[in-house]
Amino acid sequence: MAGGPSTPALAIAVCEAGGLGFLAAGYKRADAVAGEIRTVRAATPAPFGVNVFVPAAAPADPDSLRTYVERLAPEAERQGAELGSARFDDDHWEAKLDVICDERPAVASFTFGCPDGSIVERLHAAGVAAWVTVTNVEEAAAAADAGADALVVQGTEAGGHRGGFIDDGSDEGGVGLLALLRVLSRATRLPLLASGAVADGAALAAVLCAGASAAQVGTALMLAPEAGTPEAQRALLTERRPTRVTRAFTGRAARGIVNRFMEEHSGAAPVGYPEIHHVTSPLRAAARRAGDAGGFNLWAGQAHELVQERPAAEIVREMAAEAAAVLDRVSAALRGPDTSSGRS
Amino acid sequence: MAGGPSTPALAIAVCEAGGLGFLAAGYKRADAVAGEIRTVRAATPAPFGVNVFVPAAAPADPDSLRTYVERLAPEAERQGAELGSARFDDDHWEAKLDVICDERPAVASFTFGCPDGSIVERLHAAGVAAWVTVTNVEEAAAAADAGADALVVQGTEAGGHRGGFIDDGSDEGGVGLLALLRVLSRATRLPLLASGAVADGAALAAVLCAGASAAQVGTALMLAPEAGTPEAQRALLTERRPTRVTRAFTGRAARGIVNRFMEEHSGAAPVGYPEIHHVTSPLRAAARRAGDAGGFNLWAGQAHELVQERPAAEIVREMAAEAAAVLDRVSAALRGPDTSSGRS
Repeated sequence: MAGGPSTPALAIAVCEAGGLGFLAAGYKRADAVAGEIRTVRAATPAPFGVNVFVPAAAPADPDSLRTYVERLAPEAERQGAELGSARFDDDHWEAKLDVICDERPAVASFTFGCPDGSIVERLHAAGVAAWVTVTNVEEAAAAADAGADALVVQGTEAGGHRGGFIDDGSDEGGVGLLALLRVLSRATRLPLLASGAVADGAALAAVLCAGASAAQVGTALMLAPEAGTPEAQRALLTERRPTRVTRAFTGRAARGIVNRFMEEHSGAAPVGYPEIHHVTSPLRAAARRAGDAGGFNLWAGQAHELVQERPAAEIVREMAAEAAAVLDRVSAALRGPDTSSGRS
Repeated sequence: MAGGPSTPALAIAVCEAGGLGFLAAGYKRADAVAGEIRTVRAATPAPFGVNVFVPAAAPADPDSLRTYVERLAPEAERQGAELGSARFDDDHWEAKLDVICDERPAVASFTFGCPDGSIVERLHAAGVAAWVTVTNVEEAAAAADAGADALVVQGTEAGGHRGGFIDDGSDEGGVGLLALLRVLSRATRLPLLASGAVADGAALAAVLCAGASAAQVGTALMLAPEAGTPEAQRALLTERRPTRVTRAFTGRAARGIVNRFMEEHSGAAPVGYPEIHHVTSPLRAAARRAGDAGGFNLWAGQAHELVQERPAAEIVREMAAEAAAVLDRVSAALRGPDTSSGRS
């Protein structure tokens, strides 16, 4: 949950409730990441993780990029902001790896690609487990080859960026979490962390049955007071609003609640991350400040309407307790002739 | 599983194993449906269901349809077949409703729309339960208003046609089963039947935890000897091949294994069911006869590589037994400090 919702306070609250809290390194400078790691460490003895974006392999096509940037000029005017520079960068990749190997969180998870085997070895030497986000079997196999310790299995339901290795520009919907978990359960021995639509304890119970060792929760925490979710986004998360996958905001496929910016620009947005992310960044910041929910990215998973406005620790504890209760109830219903409903 | 895989023998085998077997009324004449119902009834005292396609609301746009039909002329030549006539029809809707009210299977399930409340009343008067296939909350609400007894909840993972009420021409991926089950569990009191990616007992356990009362299984039965699955399709089902949603074969969005026909025509195919279904029907039949898997629809869900070539009764019984075992194991793992893995 890079870019706002993820905060040290949220990670601390999740850790204190028995979860594995995560910090988002994406879009931050390496020293800021180090500072956040120290903040969490000072507050809790519990293990926690840091999520890192793997740099894109190649810059965007210059012509497509230029055309899209020109298209966004009226958006900049609308928000009273300047377009950002369309720069290709690596989000301080090497410096962040150095910080992680120095600070040694329990886990480094990777999004947008798989670190080389040599990097995984470096992490292991530092006592840091390497988790890789995957969206299909091929990515899972590559992550296993690189020495990953676990796979974050992201279903199409998940909010935010598609965490797979390559954005090929396809508008295919992606694989649903249930199918992906079942196929990967048979294809790999690595532990699977389920990501996407895990909004409550019943969904957690479901993914555990489907082969996950645990779930990675995002949207479900976005209304917690500890989250840095923008106010204008908070107001929409509990509403029944469709989500879709778009490249309009960042040049990379990501799922969010449908809004004006998405509707006007998705059809024209090329593959171009991180360039388009940088171009729209000042516009999105201005829209957030102005409370204009039509003008920035409202990342959210497909089950977002179930999100609850409660302290993160309560959300985590209730999710675990409800999962256990659901498992007991469904298990008993399947066993006995005196069945209760499997519904929750 | 209209159009081939569904057979009376398959329904009988599922019923005899303790499942609720289904017959497909789609693409058949009403008297053929009546004959199949009688065949099942003669073979088993168990309850069973019949699936019916609700007629499309309006014909296809004539210009888009004509352009697409012209595009398919070389396909007809390739298969040594004539293009079918682009006719708009209702698939013998009234006659099939009459047959169902006369023959009284336990359940009539509906795809592509919701029958009017008056039809549901007629079914109820005949002792037939009405189930409606839904892909979002709005459809679920409409089905509840019409008096439906249960909802077949189709996730994006499912093979074959998207069973929702309207094909709006969107290329959105649709909602994943897990998200849909959780949202609908909170939004309706109707029993939910989970459809999509339920390929084994672990997936069945998962959807029961997620709020389903049962699962509707399609792809998982397609290699059973009782299924009428074409040989050329059988050979590909267990391979790791991507699926996608296409209108190329029938004019209505449906998920199948990616093949030549799909790749060449998906981008050009308009919304136009049942007209395009009729146009391509002779081509697809010829390709099936020739064993040309590139030339006909290879409907399959996203977990199709897990399908097993076994008698349908074994598949059904093992799925139920495995679901119970998975629930017990995961439930015990969550309870005790002496945890075993949640993997299956």
